[in-house]
Amino acid sequence: MSFDRLIEKIVEKQNPTVAGLDPKLGYIPEYIKSAAFEQYGKTLEGAAEALWQFNKGLIDSLCDIVPAVKPQAAYYEMYGWQGVRALERTISYAKEKGMFVITDAKRNDIGTTMQAYAAAHLGKTEIEGERVTAFGADALTVNGYLGTDGIAPVIEVAKAEDKGMFVLVKTSNPSSGELQNLELEGGETIYLHMGKLCERWGEELPGRYGYSGVGAVVGATYPEQLTELRLELPHTFFLVPGYGAQGGTADDIAGAFDKNGLGAIVNSSRGIMCAWQKSGCAEGDFAAAARDEALKMKKLLTDVTGEIKKD
Amino acid sequence: MSFDRLIEKIVEKQNPTVAGLDPKLGYIPEYIKSAAFEQYGKTLEGAAEALWQFNKGLIDSLCDIVPAVKPQAAYYEMYGWQGVRALERTISYAKEKGMFVITDAKRNDIGTTMQAYAAAHLGKTEIEGERVTAFGADALTVNGYLGTDGIAPVIEVAKAEDKGMFVLVKTSNPSSGELQNLELEGGETIYLHMGKLCERWGEELPGRYGYSGVGAVVGATYPEQLTELRLELPHTFFLVPGYGAQGGTADDIAGAFDKNGLGAIVNSSRGIMCAWQKSGCAEGDFAAAARDEALKMKKLLTDVTGEIKKD
Repeated sequence: MSFDRLIEKIVEKQNPTVAGLDPKLGYIPEYIKSAAFEQYGKTLEGAAEALWQFNKGLIDSLCDIVPAVKPQAAYYEMYGWQGVRALERTISYAKEKGMFVITDAKRNDIGTTMQAYAAAHLGKTEIEGERVTAFGADALTVNGYLGTDGIAPVIEVAKAEDKGMFVLVKTSNPSSGELQNLELEGGETIYLHMGKLCERWGEELPGRYGYSGVGAVVGATYPEQLTELRLELPHTFFLVPGYGAQGGTADDIAGAFDKNGLGAIVNSSRGIMCAWQKSGCAEGDFAAAARDEALKMKKLLTDVTGEIKKD
Repeated sequence: MSFDRLIEKIVEKQNPTVAGLDPKLGYIPEYIKSAAFEQYGKTLEGAAEALWQFNKGLIDSLCDIVPAVKPQAAYYEMYGWQGVRALERTISYAKEKGMFVITDAKRNDIGTTMQAYAAAHLGKTEIEGERVTAFGADALTVNGYLGTDGIAPVIEVAKAEDKGMFVLVKTSNPSSGELQNLELEGGETIYLHMGKLCERWGEELPGRYGYSGVGAVVGATYPEQLTELRLELPHTFFLVPGYGAQGGTADDIAGAFDKNGLGAIVNSSRGIMCAWQKSGCAEGDFAAAARDEALKMKKLLTDVTGEIKKD
């Protein structure tokens, strides 16, 4: 009921990277797409098959060096329920290969509706006494705008099923400050206020290594805020997007880590997925190119963290 | 590129109600479930079939008196990709029956990822030059915590496809004030600030009847805020949850309407879906019970609005 399992995988692999699986068709080698479209036509089903084959290749190539994957729900929903089926297959396969799976879906709602999202993505769904897994990720990103009513149902499932969540605190995008940087009466920013709510919510999901099961999303593109939030939120593990394609560097995220090199996991999506396009290698080597890029990223990050230790 | 189509349906039916389709298995008559489980087993597929049959009965019974339905994505995702397929079928069927469909999914992300959500739920997905509809609702609920980067991609699709969105402003739940009621430097609340962003974003989607394509979610449980926001946000159409089961009454939402009886559409989910359980009628009459309840609600709401006029 925390991020202990994630932390153990990070330490074991000595790699605080999560590989984002945001498989747009444009990122997928032609030979995978042709095979899928030949079988299913230029349909949602054909596209979903291509997504799944691409993901499978990436997972096979990354699973022994990268501790976690983060499929972004939007890129699957875009291909209809067929795409959502590819999401489910991707999650199952990554877990089978020992990876920690963070579904990046930024879900938010209240009461029984949020219970339904928590059951869908992290827990079990009850069908006439049977308990069935719908998606079964290890962690889910959520949006806290609705307050505790939107978080408590996820905490319940996280407790029961040993899962975690990441709450949006300071996002990586240029306009994130429009709302998040506004100052409340007394001078505290909204993002810091949200971060402190994470610390409070996290009290219900304490972890063995000092970090609770309620993490925070904090963008690599805002190094000052990363450093500020690391100090202010000692029990909150960070999911850090915005590295690479969005402009964040390894130095930018140095402040996200604690003295043991823990405290954050850094996402790379396009950097890893599209490495084959950038490197100009043969299409058939897309997975090897992803692995090379992931090893390069591991090196850059661990130059910053040093040896990653559990205590 | 606004809520003109929704407004026209509301005026035509003289009914500012949207029927929430949040089909938990517990709400569905036994005979529908037995048939589905007999065919598909107690599986996600069986549950999804029951959801779909229940929804179909409700839509058939409501489509000539209620202008819109609002399926809540969580209750479909809970039943896996099979449930998400039932969502797609529900949306298609409701549109076929002339209803305006609001997918309540509270999606939020940035840049290309938010483009993917907008394509998924409102627009078209491109597959090798073919443009395919994934879900194809008329409007989507979204969460604005990430600022303009999370809204602009939805505006683009709304422009191109004549669709709309509702941004969470002041939600109906008890803890909505934890963040939304905080006062910024200068004394403005976060929810009012978010509402004013809706007015600004809406300038890109002007409508024939004074309301833009960027609406706001404002809960029936906060009548004072409804009245305040109606005055402050003259171009922002409201989606009002919290009526009925959550405690909001017709009087509570009086302030949401303008002098023409426009400006808001009020959701009822359990009230309509579960009317058959409350009334104790025969299971086979669930759809008729839903219709009776919807007619009762229409009467209560139009007692408040008077005749609803377009100008």
